[in-house]
Amino acid sequence: MKLLVVGSVAFDAIETPFGKTDKILGGAATFIGIASSIMGVPSGIVSVVGGDFPQEYLDLLTGRGVNIDGIEIVKDGKTFFWSGRYHNDLNSRDTLVTEVNVLENFDPKIPDSMQDAEVLLLGNLHPAVQLSVLEKMKSRPKMVILDTMNFWMDTAMDTLKVMIAKTDVISINDEEARQLSGEYSLVKAAKKIHEMGPDFVIIKKGEHGALLFHDGRIFAIPAMPLEEVFDPTGAGDTFAGGFAAYLAKKEDFGFETMKSALIVGSALASFTVEKFGTERLTEVTEADMIGRIKQFKELTTFEVEV
Amino acid sequence: MKLLVVGSVAFDAIETPFGKTDKILGGAATFIGIASSIMGVPSGIVSVVGGDFPQEYLDLLTGRGVNIDGIEIVKDGKTFFWSGRYHNDLNSRDTLVTEVNVLENFDPKIPDSMQDAEVLLLGNLHPAVQLSVLEKMKSRPKMVILDTMNFWMDTAMDTLKVMIAKTDVISINDEEARQLSGEYSLVKAAKKIHEMGPDFVIIKKGEHGALLFHDGRIFAIPAMPLEEVFDPTGAGDTFAGGFAAYLAKKEDFGFETMKSALIVGSALASFTVEKFGTERLTEVTEADMIGRIKQFKELTTFEVEV
Repeated sequence: MKLLVVGSVAFDAIETPFGKTDKILGGAATFIGIASSIMGVPSGIVSVVGGDFPQEYLDLLTGRGVNIDGIEIVKDGKTFFWSGRYHNDLNSRDTLVTEVNVLENFDPKIPDSMQDAEVLLLGNLHPAVQLSVLEKMKSRPKMVILDTMNFWMDTAMDTLKVMIAKTDVISINDEEARQLSGEYSLVKAAKKIHEMGPDFVIIKKGEHGALLFHDGRIFAIPAMPLEEVFDPTGAGDTFAGGFAAYLAKKEDFGFETMKSALIVGSALASFTVEKFGTERLTEVTEADMIGRIKQFKELTTFEVEV
Repeated sequence: MKLLVVGSVAFDAIETPFGKTDKILGGAATFIGIASSIMGVPSGIVSVVGGDFPQEYLDLLTGRGVNIDGIEIVKDGKTFFWSGRYHNDLNSRDTLVTEVNVLENFDPKIPDSMQDAEVLLLGNLHPAVQLSVLEKMKSRPKMVILDTMNFWMDTAMDTLKVMIAKTDVISINDEEARQLSGEYSLVKAAKKIHEMGPDFVIIKKGEHGALLFHDGRIFAIPAMPLEEVFDPTGAGDTFAGGFAAYLAKKEDFGFETMKSALIVGSALASFTVEKFGTERLTEVTEADMIGRIKQFKELTTFEVEV
């Protein structure tokens, strides 16, 4: 199946305790597209960049088989730019600069070449933009995956709820799940979020892994324990990309497939944090990914005979 | 194998958002002894109580086959008493009262009936007391498991380090692992703690589960996601008790057995939090425990075919 991704393609400038970068390639859709290409899944990006966006970054995507027909280039506009500084624990960060630029008036256009995508991943954008994408699809994709964040809960909750009602899989972090549901217990939170629409609720817990809820069943995975996290930027997007691409590859949306997809997403995300930006992810082969999945299996497998 | 437990036998008074108790049965060794009895493992407690400690509580322990020869009763003394109030999230609490009482001058005495214990669980006490227990054993137990906390790192680090050097398995939480090692990354922290002595390092992460480190290998388990945590008191002790009792039952200390023991400890701990104090744990049968272990298996098992 084809995977359609709607999200940012951007510049990031990152500072960590290990060093800093100039403006480098970033954006949720970028990480998602690269993750899909590792899986060999045909994907296409719907986004917008400015005239300042280098051709070589576009070539990087097309070179990996990512369809960029849906990336609009606003010649006299500037690309979205985010700059941030991570604290010593790599778990928290300060945003130094956010220049929304061409993303401010982003009006997503679905190219004909991607109208037949059966998996749609709506990256973290204004819920009204996410809704407009769904309306512009000639037929509803079989699987709609929603990434969102607390910012939209604070500023556009009503619209977000309309979007959530049309969603099959929602992916949020633990604090966002609590905010969205008003429940502290994540089990209760997931129940309330199910009632809002999504059949599958993914709750991300950063270094503590993730939970998947579906139809009264729960699946839990740890994050891969790493000696060093070099740069967390894009880890969440890589996770979402690996997850969605696995569903598209398997052409199946059952609970068992969803569980596997969570592992694949986590495995790919564990590479992203090893270098700045997309640097590590672009080196990763399918064999690397399979090796990391095996490590997850070793990390979590047990037998108990009482 | 026999399990010898050194730790508090005490009164607790607990307040949670769901209610409050009068003085009820508490103490680390109490939870550990009950956990062992569910596993059918012969255990004995070394502790001290005051003349105010009800015979019915002692009977509860002996009725479950727990050897209490090592529980000294100081007739004119008062039993250790702790009172606390949990916050709404059940993840943090305020201590209202700590009356150390007879535990202040606790001089543990190992009864002859427990000198042949091959597994020793040193509950969270002053490291000098823990060390004295090891010295009083006629032969070193095959497996020494240490529970400790940040309080002893703050007040008795040098003695604690001597104790840690004599330990096979150390069980601490993530913040304590960071404090003890000076490393933020838990993988690095575990390496440094290995160098201090223990072959096995357990890092507990509360609602996020636990990690087991041994010889470059890592095992990760989530906590059982629960709809409601009623009272967390004793969960950590139950975990340690289930863990140690499983090792004693299996008479094996390999990595695979340690992994299973972690699951058994977590399964039992997930019962403890369902009611006040020891109330739920005393109802739990071996069949209940096996059912909860199966739930852990369902929670964590996956297959990935790329």
